[in-house]
Amino acid sequence: MPHIDLPEGVPGIRGPMLYRPDTAQHMNELVSVLLHDEHTLSAGEREMIGAAVSRANECVYCSTIHASIAVHQLHAVEGARDLVESVLRDPLHAPVSDKLNALLVLALQVRKGGKEVTPEAVAHARSVGATDLEIHDAILIGASFCMFNRYVDGLATYTPDDPAVYDELGARRAAQGYRVGIT
Amino acid sequence: MPHIDLPEGVPGIRGPMLYRPDTAQHMNELVSVLLHDEHTLSAGEREMIGAAVSRANECVYCSTIHASIAVHQLHAVEGARDLVESVLRDPLHAPVSDKLNALLVLALQVRKGGKEVTPEAVAHARSVGATDLEIHDAILIGASFCMFNRYVDGLATYTPDDPAVYDELGARRAAQGYRVGIT
Repeated sequence: MPHIDLPEGVPGIRGPMLYRPDTAQHMNELVSVLLHDEHTLSAGEREMIGAAVSRANECVYCSTIHASIAVHQLHAVEGARDLVESVLRDPLHAPVSDKLNALLVLALQVRKGGKEVTPEAVAHARSVGATDLEIHDAILIGASFCMFNRYVDGLATYTPDDPAVYDELGARRAAQGYRVGIT
Repeated sequence: MPHIDLPEGVPGIRGPMLYRPDTAQHMNELVSVLLHDEHTLSAGEREMIGAAVSRANECVYCSTIHASIAVHQLHAVEGARDLVESVLRDPLHAPVSDKLNALLVLALQVRKGGKEVTPEAVAHARSVGATDLEIHDAILIGASFCMFNRYVDGLATYTPDDPAVYDELGARRAAQGYRVGIT
């Protein structure tokens, strides 16, 4: 049961976002820029970074929903579901590009703490083609999911068990993004 | 030296915020709602929660600047500087109200991880007068500083040594808030 009186049966972050639209609005705008808007990294790649950080933070709702969004964003890629599963299971050994691997390293470093990000990992990311903006955004995606995951679990929000819930919501987010409202 | 090419000599979060205004805008809006806008908790109380979480996360820039903002927000309170110092040093034994003490407990629990927030700590906060909104916001302040702290340290931003820099910037933020731009 959630720690505060949230709208009943609303999954994950959507409960507290409905409860407090004044903060929800800006969190949705931030995640739109980071994960959905036009970017040199595909939306699927960025969603996989968010899902991997969420899994490492053991946030079941966030890791499951962002994995689902990633699958739907990557619908044109053969084996997308297996790819996303492999990133969740073992992000640093998943069969992704060298650049995405290097960005996953950075996001998972910053998840542990800001000072865990090493100059070597940044230099490596750059050496495999990551731009400053991509490095910045991978670090901010990692940092922001440390907020989102804590927000979701810190209020003990409702985590559905039914995979169909995540599949349907993931399809909708992939198509419509994060600015269309949270209902 | 910062990990990416940030504007030189700009302290803390302001460097990456100048570098990436598209994300900065929404982070500033979020922190305005949480720390500066009208609220049942004073701005000084909310700044102390942010400063305490930042100190626990060992983010020198964030803990120092938010402590300074807290001092300036509490300018009408006798001994404000000592009070803020005591919150930084030992937040759970600082001479604050029972309600603020209980909210500090929640913010420091969620800092460790979403699942660290206990029903007992929430019930205690409620028993000493905290509303659902105050509990929600304390948890989101704690969670959001886990993002801000990681963002600042994860990019190895510039951390000034000179207390006068923090005092001047803290006075400005306390007076003008977070929406006036980041320069």
